[in-house]
Amino acid sequence: MNVRCFYGGELCSEFLSYLRSALLSNSVIPLYVIASTRTSLIPGISLAGANPELTLLTPTLDVEYLLMGRVLSMDLIPTTPEGIPTPALITRACLNLVGLKGLVVNAGVFKDPKVPHVVLPSKCVGGRIDTEYALPKGTSERLFNEAKLLGSSMGRYFKLVVIGESMAGGTTTALSIMSALGFNAWGRVSSSAPNNPLKLKEEVVKKALSRLRGNESVFEINDLVGDPLHISIAGLAVGALKVGAKVLLGGGTQMCAVLAILNRLGITGSNSLAIGTTSWLVKFTPTIKDLVSDILPTVPIIYADLSFSNSRFEGLRKYEVGYVKEGVGAGASAILALAKGFDVEEVVKSIEDEYERVIKSVK
Amino acid sequence: MNVRCFYGGELCSEFLSYLRSALLSNSVIPLYVIASTRTSLIPGISLAGANPELTLLTPTLDVEYLLMGRVLSMDLIPTTPEGIPTPALITRACLNLVGLKGLVVNAGVFKDPKVPHVVLPSKCVGGRIDTEYALPKGTSERLFNEAKLLGSSMGRYFKLVVIGESMAGGTTTALSIMSALGFNAWGRVSSSAPNNPLKLKEEVVKKALSRLRGNESVFEINDLVGDPLHISIAGLAVGALKVGAKVLLGGGTQMCAVLAILNRLGITGSNSLAIGTTSWLVKFTPTIKDLVSDILPTVPIIYADLSFSNSRFEGLRKYEVGYVKEGVGAGASAILALAKGFDVEEVVKSIEDEYERVIKSVK
Repeated sequence: MNVRCFYGGELCSEFLSYLRSALLSNSVIPLYVIASTRTSLIPGISLAGANPELTLLTPTLDVEYLLMGRVLSMDLIPTTPEGIPTPALITRACLNLVGLKGLVVNAGVFKDPKVPHVVLPSKCVGGRIDTEYALPKGTSERLFNEAKLLGSSMGRYFKLVVIGESMAGGTTTALSIMSALGFNAWGRVSSSAPNNPLKLKEEVVKKALSRLRGNESVFEINDLVGDPLHISIAGLAVGALKVGAKVLLGGGTQMCAVLAILNRLGITGSNSLAIGTTSWLVKFTPTIKDLVSDILPTVPIIYADLSFSNSRFEGLRKYEVGYVKEGVGAGASAILALAKGFDVEEVVKSIEDEYERVIKSVK
Repeated sequence: MNVRCFYGGELCSEFLSYLRSALLSNSVIPLYVIASTRTSLIPGISLAGANPELTLLTPTLDVEYLLMGRVLSMDLIPTTPEGIPTPALITRACLNLVGLKGLVVNAGVFKDPKVPHVVLPSKCVGGRIDTEYALPKGTSERLFNEAKLLGSSMGRYFKLVVIGESMAGGTTTALSIMSALGFNAWGRVSSSAPNNPLKLKEEVVKKALSRLRGNESVFEINDLVGDPLHISIAGLAVGALKVGAKVLLGGGTQMCAVLAILNRLGITGSNSLAIGTTSWLVKFTPTIKDLVSDILPTVPIIYADLSFSNSRFEGLRKYEVGYVKEGVGAGASAILALAKGFDVEEVVKSIEDEYERVIKSVK
């Protein structure tokens, strides 16, 4: 059914059969966590926005578009500087196919979206980690606990909690979090650009890490060099797992930062946790396998084997040469559509139809 | 099982059997909508707070206590001036029995609660309706549409959406809304006080109504003389009903203002909508029956037949002489517990145990 295993063997198929049964019993909730980090303002670090300033707004525009089919806070849909559309396009088309509605969780976005969304009370825009603290002291622990409470509510109601994210600059802060927690992530994180600015990311992260003394807790580390997003996703996951739900982390190498946090909190998520991503992510960033096997080796990686090679839209064909790759839970949403029984052609067609609708609506 | 029909005959038992099947399939979500109206600052109008200023905070404290078991934004639990505890005590105890977690929806509260909650982007504290507009122009329609979107998400996931509320001053603005929409509600609304200050409410509402020209839409009327709460509840209900869920409005005569809005929007909610309340509400404000039969006569009223007459706590026994009566979905939550199979003694004991825990924890 074109949901494939990239890492984990048997664990992939076990997770997938659970996912299918959760879909059948209408017991799947997709959450989309949004936040901003001023790290995305560093020139050249993020393509998730037409220019660095706009990267702060991308999460807001992503979820407005996701829920409403159009952006409310500006007059465009989020694109890269070359005009390649946000992966939220894939997410929206796939959720529509499956008949699911996402719930947005605001962990600290620069501008609140104009759609109903869940607020974590300690939400806070993240600092630019090369020059300032990521978060005010104590924020990470509060965000984690607030998200955990929400995750446990969701986990009571749903068998499967799917968590996607949108935050520009996220692979850089993910690199910072994994490194600070003692994992080798150098050269292993992905990017929304075909040419991953790995050197720049490493320079930024090394400046951030120089702030550490080496005796900090997970939460203190995240206050110093992390961001509001990954710690909140970790909290959601822990809350949901605690009450017996399973969790699909929808994203690329950023989700390995979540695994790193879980590891350091003593949570393995055995048989209850998986990463769901795209074919483009595993093709262009196969290092995700190394990250997972170093951090939480019992977590399988599954992916939706979509291809835009034959798409009539150039903006979508660009995904095939390494632009965007993943984001806003695109891979996980496509996995849901494929697992529900739609074939690849149907899924791609619904994405193309949605793209066409969007292009026409902004003209 | 001590869930009784106060109005509606057959419609009550049909709704109840649906409610039980929704409970059995774990497909019930309780939403608690909170908002503030400066109408509650009018001296003598509301007992939902130890003094008029505190009435603005009551919804915030109610839901913090509801989700966390303790208030985070102050050092007390919400009480009347005499120290009678918030009905959120009943709600919390009953949800715990049933194993449900509530989701808080912020439609415009004076102080944001320190627990995760859903925000309606157009949220706005309501004005004091005797002297100022209730809401800035256009707010009611936006709140309604935002709530409708959320309601339709919830209605896709859950067979039954239960909606409770907390807003001091709510019976006064409910009177205003019903009157402005052309229904006779004079002398028919309830109160958290045993001596309902009906005269004062009528004076306030008459001042508000003098602002109307008579050619306004429902939304314009609510902007002029309503509040942020009832229009949002109406939106949630419409959204959930639209996608096939049923809705239990958990509250007293305030919910009749929601019915009035639904009526004027052309929605009857036949076989899909009910009011769920307490024995104290129907005992002390039987006029709720007249309101419903005038406004949307196909909506049944069910209530939880609890009694605190023999309680060892004076604060609870006061409910039996007409204090508080209802709020924060207390009646609907007790209905869920009773429908789940707990008997009255078990429900009352769990409320008393919770009360004891709270009293001890604040000492």
